[in-house]
Amino acid sequence: MTAVENLKIAKPNVIALDAMGGDNAPVIVIDGAALARARTPDIQFIFFGDEAQIAPLLAHYPQLCGCSEIRHTTEVISSDMKPSLALRQGRKSSMRLAINAVAEGEASSIVSAGNTGALMATAKFVLRTLPGVDRPAIATMLPTKKGETVMLDLGANIECDAENLVQFALMGAIFCRTVLGRSEPLIGLLNIGTEELKGHDEVRIAAQILRERPIPGRFLGFIEGNDITAGTVDVVVTDGFSGNIALKAIEGTANLIAYFLKQVFTSSLIARVGYLLSRGAFQRLKSRVDPRRYNGAMFLGLQGVCVKSHGGTDAEGFANAIGVAYDLVRRGFNERIAEEMAAQYGMADLVITKQEDGAP
Amino acid sequence: MTAVENLKIAKPNVIALDAMGGDNAPVIVIDGAALARARTPDIQFIFFGDEAQIAPLLAHYPQLCGCSEIRHTTEVISSDMKPSLALRQGRKSSMRLAINAVAEGEASSIVSAGNTGALMATAKFVLRTLPGVDRPAIATMLPTKKGETVMLDLGANIECDAENLVQFALMGAIFCRTVLGRSEPLIGLLNIGTEELKGHDEVRIAAQILRERPIPGRFLGFIEGNDITAGTVDVVVTDGFSGNIALKAIEGTANLIAYFLKQVFTSSLIARVGYLLSRGAFQRLKSRVDPRRYNGAMFLGLQGVCVKSHGGTDAEGFANAIGVAYDLVRRGFNERIAEEMAAQYGMADLVITKQEDGAP
Repeated sequence: MTAVENLKIAKPNVIALDAMGGDNAPVIVIDGAALARARTPDIQFIFFGDEAQIAPLLAHYPQLCGCSEIRHTTEVISSDMKPSLALRQGRKSSMRLAINAVAEGEASSIVSAGNTGALMATAKFVLRTLPGVDRPAIATMLPTKKGETVMLDLGANIECDAENLVQFALMGAIFCRTVLGRSEPLIGLLNIGTEELKGHDEVRIAAQILRERPIPGRFLGFIEGNDITAGTVDVVVTDGFSGNIALKAIEGTANLIAYFLKQVFTSSLIARVGYLLSRGAFQRLKSRVDPRRYNGAMFLGLQGVCVKSHGGTDAEGFANAIGVAYDLVRRGFNERIAEEMAAQYGMADLVITKQEDGAP
Repeated sequence: MTAVENLKIAKPNVIALDAMGGDNAPVIVIDGAALARARTPDIQFIFFGDEAQIAPLLAHYPQLCGCSEIRHTTEVISSDMKPSLALRQGRKSSMRLAINAVAEGEASSIVSAGNTGALMATAKFVLRTLPGVDRPAIATMLPTKKGETVMLDLGANIECDAENLVQFALMGAIFCRTVLGRSEPLIGLLNIGTEELKGHDEVRIAAQILRERPIPGRFLGFIEGNDITAGTVDVVVTDGFSGNIALKAIEGTANLIAYFLKQVFTSSLIARVGYLLSRGAFQRLKSRVDPRRYNGAMFLGLQGVCVKSHGGTDAEGFANAIGVAYDLVRRGFNERIAEEMAAQYGMADLVITKQEDGAP
C-alpha cells in the first residue's frame, strides 16, 4: 500500500471542531458552523466541549443539529498555556479530543480558534508529519495587487534549515495547484535582497536546491518584503520567525492606515460628505482586505488537516476557517503532498506509520 | 583624552555629499542640497563627483554656490556593485572620497543615495565603529499611531548575537533622547510572541541583559510585528534580516492599500466626487506617511555620521536625508553613544583609534 492510498479519508465531510477555543467560544464556533453548513450542505460536525454550553446554542439551528454531534468534555486549553503543558495535561481537553478524532478517522479535519502553540504541538504529536516532511509549517493566504498569495512558515519553526525551506516551497506550491488551481505556481524565497549572494546560508542553499530540483512550480529566486503584497509570486517561503514578523507587520500597517483614514474622513464636514459619497466603493475595498476573509491558518505537512482560526474572530471568520479545512480535504491536498514527497525523496513505497484501522 | 573629547567635530556644518549616487544623481543631490540650504542657512557642502555635471546644476543656485565646493572625480560605485568590489576598486569613487572627507575631518557627515551595501562596507572600513560598538546598524524612523518610532537594524547585520541586539537598543534609545528629545524612551525587542520563553536564544538572552543592565530608557520586553506601526515603543530592536523584511513588508502594504484606494475612488463618478471633497484631508494623510519625509536611513555606531538616502528619491527626499545628518551632528549623537558605551563597558579611558589630526 502506498502512502497516498493510506491517506484516503473515511469521512471527508466530517469536521471536528474545538468548540471551546478562542475569545468568543463556544458562541462563534456554533454560529460559524451554522454559516458553513448553509454554504456547504453536505458538511457534518463533531463539536468537542461543554455540552451544557453547546447544546442550547446548537438548538437555534435545526439544520445544523441534524448534521452535528456533541462530544462532552469540560477541560479546555487556556490561551496562555504552554504547549508542553497542554500536551501533558490537556489529554481530555476539547482541543486534544478534536485532534484525536482526526487521528482516529472519525473526522477528516480539525478547526480550532484556541492557543496556536498548543494546537501545533498537539497536532504534531497526535497526527504526526506526512512521510518526507520534516516539519509542519503554518500557512495563510494574503491579499495582493494581483489577487492572493500563500505565505509560509508563519511561526511554527523559529529556525529552519535549507531543506525545511525547500519543503515549505513544495507544500506551498502544491497548495496553489490543488486548492487554487494554479498549474505553474511562482515560488519566491523571502530575503533581504534579490542578488544570489544575499542572505544567510539557509536561504542561499535552499535557493540552490530549488533551482536544481524538479519542483511543482517555478522558482523565481529571492524576493523582498515588499514583494509579498505586490503579488510577485504565488508562494512566499520563509522561516517562522521572519514570516510571523512580516505577517504581523502587514496587519499592523493595514491597521495604521485604517486609523489614518478614519482621521481623514472625520477631519471636516466636507470630508465626511466625501466619505459618504465613496462609501459603497469603500465597502468593496473593506471586504477585499477583510481579515475574516483570510481567516484560517493552515498547518501544512501533517497526516490530517488542521486549521487554526484567529482567536478573536467572529462567526463569519470561523465559517471561513471551516471552509479552508473543507477545501483542503476535498481537493486531496495531503494526498498530493504525500505523492510529491515520495517523488522528491524516492519514498514511493514508504507507508504512513499511522494505523490503518484508525486506532490512536 | 576621553573618547568623547576625541569625537568633537572640527566642522560640524560641513556635509559631504556623494553627488553621483542614486537613480537621479546628480540632479536631485544638488536640488536637494539647495532645499536643505534654504532650511538651514549655516549648512555647507562638499560635492564629490563629476564637476562637468555638477557645476552647471549648482549654477542655478547662487546661494548654494556660496557655501559649496566641488571635488572632482569621474569614478562612481554602481548600484549593483558588490560591497567587497566597491571597497577594493572604488578608492577614487565619489562615495569613497565623500566618506574619506569625514574621516579626515573635512566634513561632519556624509549623505549618499548610492548602493547601500557598498556605502555600509566603505563607511565601516573608513570610519570604523565607535569604541564599544561591535557592529554598526541601519536605523530609520517610521510613522505610527502615536507619532514616530525608530527601528534598527534594517539590514546591516543578517545575523546578530544578543550583545549586538543590546547595543542596537542602546543606540536607538540614545537617538530618541538626543535627537527626538524623549527622556525615557521605551524599547521593544521584536519577537514572535510576548511571552518570556518565545523566540530564539539571541533575543531571549538580549531581553535578559536589557532587563538587568542600567539602560538609557525603559525596556518593555518583547513586541510583535504589529507593534511597530502601533507605536507601542519608541525603539524597535531586531536583527537586520527580520528588520529589513518587516520594513519592506510595511512599505509594500502601504503601496497595496494606496493601490486599492485608487481603485475605490475611480470606481464610479460618485466615488470620484467623494474623493474630490475629501482631497484636502487626503493630502494631509499623504504628507503624514510620505516616504520622502522618512527618507534618510542612519548608519549608527560609526565614528562619523553617515546617512543613506533612498536611491529613487527626489530633491525633497534628499533634502530630508541631509536634515537627518545635520540633526545627528548638531545633537551630538555620536558623542552620546560614545559616553553610553564607555559607561556600559567601563571604557571611560578608551581613546578612539582615529588620529586626532584627522589624517586617513
